[in-house]
Amino acid sequence: MKASIIVIGTELTRGIIQDKHGSLISRELTHLGVHVSEIVALPDDGTIESVLGALMRFSDIVLITGGLGPTSDDMTRPVIAEAAGKRLVRSETAWNHLVSRVGERAYGANERQAMIPEGFGTIPNPNGTALGFYGYGGDVLIIALPGPPKEMDPMFYESVIPLIREKLDLPEAERDEYSSFITAEAKLEELYEAADPELDWGTRFQDYRISLYVSGKSRKERDEAIAKLRGMLGYGRLVDGDTDALTIVTDALKRRNATVSAAESCTGGLVSELLTSRPGSSSFMLGSVTSYAASVKESVLGVDHGTIVEHGTVSAECAIGMADGVRKLTGSDYSVSITGVAGPDKDEGKDVGTVFIGFSGRGRRSEAVSFRFTSWGRDSIRRRSAVAAFLLLAAYIEGKSAEETAAGWGFI
Amino acid sequence: MKASIIVIGTELTRGIIQDKHGSLISRELTHLGVHVSEIVALPDDGTIESVLGALMRFSDIVLITGGLGPTSDDMTRPVIAEAAGKRLVRSETAWNHLVSRVGERAYGANERQAMIPEGFGTIPNPNGTALGFYGYGGDVLIIALPGPPKEMDPMFYESVIPLIREKLDLPEAERDEYSSFITAEAKLEELYEAADPELDWGTRFQDYRISLYVSGKSRKERDEAIAKLRGMLGYGRLVDGDTDALTIVTDALKRRNATVSAAESCTGGLVSELLTSRPGSSSFMLGSVTSYAASVKESVLGVDHGTIVEHGTVSAECAIGMADGVRKLTGSDYSVSITGVAGPDKDEGKDVGTVFIGFSGRGRRSEAVSFRFTSWGRDSIRRRSAVAAFLLLAAYIEGKSAEETAAGWGFI
Repeated sequence: MKASIIVIGTELTRGIIQDKHGSLISRELTHLGVHVSEIVALPDDGTIESVLGALMRFSDIVLITGGLGPTSDDMTRPVIAEAAGKRLVRSETAWNHLVSRVGERAYGANERQAMIPEGFGTIPNPNGTALGFYGYGGDVLIIALPGPPKEMDPMFYESVIPLIREKLDLPEAERDEYSSFITAEAKLEELYEAADPELDWGTRFQDYRISLYVSGKSRKERDEAIAKLRGMLGYGRLVDGDTDALTIVTDALKRRNATVSAAESCTGGLVSELLTSRPGSSSFMLGSVTSYAASVKESVLGVDHGTIVEHGTVSAECAIGMADGVRKLTGSDYSVSITGVAGPDKDEGKDVGTVFIGFSGRGRRSEAVSFRFTSWGRDSIRRRSAVAAFLLLAAYIEGKSAEETAAGWGFI
Repeated sequence: MKASIIVIGTELTRGIIQDKHGSLISRELTHLGVHVSEIVALPDDGTIESVLGALMRFSDIVLITGGLGPTSDDMTRPVIAEAAGKRLVRSETAWNHLVSRVGERAYGANERQAMIPEGFGTIPNPNGTALGFYGYGGDVLIIALPGPPKEMDPMFYESVIPLIREKLDLPEAERDEYSSFITAEAKLEELYEAADPELDWGTRFQDYRISLYVSGKSRKERDEAIAKLRGMLGYGRLVDGDTDALTIVTDALKRRNATVSAAESCTGGLVSELLTSRPGSSSFMLGSVTSYAASVKESVLGVDHGTIVEHGTVSAECAIGMADGVRKLTGSDYSVSITGVAGPDKDEGKDVGTVFIGFSGRGRRSEAVSFRFTSWGRDSIRRRSAVAAFLLLAAYIEGKSAEETAAGWGFI
């Protein structure tokens, strides 16, 4: 079984950006037992016309990304249709999707995004205007997807892999999926090899989590390996399915019909931005204070001046003062605070990566937890701090102690 | 002048590593004014045989990396020789280089590393055993280099670029780069086509901006087209070089040694997160309040209850109240506020995409500006709001009126 991959984008052949699709797709196809015989990057100028036919002669699958947007040179769609020997027709599914996303801007240049080769199927695109499509040109399965990674990546995982499995009649591998948090990918690899080196493990790094896949042997053996891994990581660090820490904490809030607020220093608003990033967040999120300057910790959040003088702003005492302060200020049921050193320089004599997270809740003892994250850069420390805050806040909302939960965590 | 690039390595087509040569070589060739029409990644199994001839038919240059090592399947050298219509012969230069590096281990499997097509020249390799080589197959310049980056990269810069310049007698390409903000890529394309359709324009969409490139015709003609485009977009919407709105506002703050704070509603902390995202931000950023609930707008930011009752929270009056409130609270020199409807549902009867941005400054009249962003989703409305806030805040800090600046903006 042979596949070819075409990635279209003038910014690729001009060296402005580096292709990532070829690597991702070829890795997953290899995993499915498909031999990738060619990855071709082409400019967005119709060069695909001279390439597609040649590739179809020795491929069973041709997967194309890019060239489907309204600003493209509009050659990709007709070239695919011609190669498949089909007319280009308007797909009602694609048209309705387009209208639902852009309203009357669907007319004009955008309209072509609804055109696909006759008889081809569409591939859902939750994050963009152009649907993907697939169908046969002779015996060759042709699959076309939009180029932006935030559109292409989920479409490939959610729709294209199952489609290829089905079309090529590949056996359905029993594969269990988990999400893991705040562990380096290399460390996670060591740990799952220690848990059971004979299973087929795989990871996919995402912004705020690592997705973990496991297949092979029996369900019982896979479950035993996962249980070992959970034990090594600690409560809440390895959860079933593809989920993220934000969902875990917002689910906990919704189950209790509780409200939340946040006080941030080194994360600068990231926790608040995430807590408000999805529709419906006003049902639980009241507000937040980013107290970047020490003076704001005192004047707005009411952290005691003596506490700051005695312990510094990067301390458990200040974290608790911030969490209590923002909860009082907003009247929320729960609150979380983060203060730490995101770098690149030390602060108050504390090392880069030192982070304190505070928790406060109505009728609950306020707590603080400290971390010393390995310094992989400012952004990474901020992200790991936010994820740790969400996981521990979820545990705290469930009635657990944040301190004890964090004490059981390994391999941070 | 057209070039094709072939990168050989089974680890590439299995997705184990990601190719970097294609990106580097295409960027440099583009810079030389050479059009890269194809970048092809192939496994190390002789697939090059079916590809090289095809690429030579429409290329002036074919550049090949990889497949020259002693452990490769040894197909690359004979395939290139055959495509060029030459015998494969032992190069004395390549043989002496090999012997000088590995001594008597030159005999045996390594020996093939000294074989090149008859009449081809060699390319020095300071960091490895296999020399590169170049020559003509018909009119096509064929260049072959080893795959390891620490060998390929210096060979490409030190020998191949000068070789291509000399062989093709290339003129220096002139290309100007700009950054544009809060315009859809499709709209920007319409506008630059209207400004001068004969220039060679290109765009690259990034998270918070679109990079714009222009080349062709004379500098004077390019500058005239850019001036037209600037006029259509308005002040601050098209700036020189590759930069972003965050840099523009932080540069304005640093020039005046001024501090800033933010009050956010629909952006939920995004403005604050961006303002603190880079090292050194504590020199200008004091803090922020995310007043997601209306009650927090009153209780924390001190927005007048009557203002909210009369005008609603999504209003110019509330935006000004929020900006004034957070500036007073933090004691900053300037402040910016955002309140609006990020969707997916209407709020207070206001349409999704309705956003008010407020500005407050020491000794300055407070102002508010309203936008009605096309709804491309919650995240996009939040991003465009933040970018608009940064650009207008920069203008406000420079002493301009934010209202008048925004009134001159077209094509939002």
